[in-house]
Amino acid sequence: MKKAVVLLSGGLDSTTTLAIAKSEGFEVYALSFNYGQRHKIELELAEKNAEIFEVKKQLTVEFNMRDIGGSALTDDIEVPKNGTDNNKDNEIPITYVPARNTIFLSFALSWAESIGAGDIYIGANAVDYSGYPDCRPEYIKAFEDMANLATKISVEGNLKFHICTPLIRLSKAEIINKGIELNVDYSQTWSCYDPVFMKELGKHVPCLKCDSCILRAKGFEDAGVIDPLL
Amino acid sequence: MKKAVVLLSGGLDSTTTLAIAKSEGFEVYALSFNYGQRHKIELELAEKNAEIFEVKKQLTVEFNMRDIGGSALTDDIEVPKNGTDNNKDNEIPITYVPARNTIFLSFALSWAESIGAGDIYIGANAVDYSGYPDCRPEYIKAFEDMANLATKISVEGNLKFHICTPLIRLSKAEIINKGIELNVDYSQTWSCYDPVFMKELGKHVPCLKCDSCILRAKGFEDAGVIDPLL
Repeated sequence: MKKAVVLLSGGLDSTTTLAIAKSEGFEVYALSFNYGQRHKIELELAEKNAEIFEVKKQLTVEFNMRDIGGSALTDDIEVPKNGTDNNKDNEIPITYVPARNTIFLSFALSWAESIGAGDIYIGANAVDYSGYPDCRPEYIKAFEDMANLATKISVEGNLKFHICTPLIRLSKAEIINKGIELNVDYSQTWSCYDPVFMKELGKHVPCLKCDSCILRAKGFEDAGVIDPLL
Repeated sequence: MKKAVVLLSGGLDSTTTLAIAKSEGFEVYALSFNYGQRHKIELELAEKNAEIFEVKKQLTVEFNMRDIGGSALTDDIEVPKNGTDNNKDNEIPITYVPARNTIFLSFALSWAESIGAGDIYIGANAVDYSGYPDCRPEYIKAFEDMANLATKISVEGNLKFHICTPLIRLSKAEIINKGIELNVDYSQTWSCYDPVFMKELGKHVPCLKCDSCILRAKGFEDAGVIDPLL
């Protein structure tokens, strides 16, 4: 059985990506990160989905990006609540975390080499997204080229790495429809960057105002499906 | 004053690299990693050299590569003591840590973007080295290309990243001579992968048998200098 490492944040995109990797017959190694993000709640859902989709192993790597700084997702900078308005000026929003996907993919590469997995899945999307540079196909291709020069297993000719981005050209609605087809339970996924704790409910709820909430809401609307998280 | 991030392990190569970056007039941000390495002793020396060379800031990022596995430097696998013999078969030795430099450079890239540093220094060497794939010029070039597609600051045209490898074509003896010229105190650097604790001395001493010890010894011999660490 061929092995794949899947980056799993517990969000809508990465959970759908996990379902796709499983449907393609891979033995899945799910990799998550506790990096000081505001929305740590996503990690519980990553673990839950790892269980639901019966991955071979789930690993959460911990490090602190707060020391590095430069993002509203890890710093004491307010998460913008003007939705995707940011993109109107073609500006990359402040929720961008410097080189985050590069760090994530580097750990994935390390684990993939260690276990002998040639395929690394990431739920990057370049259609309904916030404009992050490290979600674009040209970036993914450059990482893949680098990965095959970086590693003992590839340089010795024993394995070639492939960065798999099954969502990259899909709209959010298409992603949701694909996930439903593959039995993803979207009530068990989290997208909001800035969760609000509701005392009355005793739990966190999405803010419904950040970029990520707005992209998610638009996706469900376009797909003609009610978001089961709400 | 232009800023540079310097990867600083506390070893001979990275400390020389730090001295070079300083001599080139950069304001230096030194980045070290506590990743579960056997030879954690190097971290104290990294901090000491950061102080000696008056860096602007020193940051140690912590994460655990033991969970990822695949290396004698982090696993319970014995560090080979046949010296550079490994290289006779052109085999990459088991002390190779999967994708380690890629992880290190990714964090450096993140910090560099956050503080606005275009130059990232790494003491990679492709002459007197253990044959690690992620020390070769073609790898460094691929990482640099990827970095400039990965980041907001480069994609928006505000900064271009350059991965600086001043040691890459130097022999170990040339590195040592360069360092001495720049006032590096090599008694404050550590190379051994598998330090031995000497009860009589109350401190760790180099094993003198691992690849890294042998390359260091040969370097000092070729340079005609006594290693002040011994």
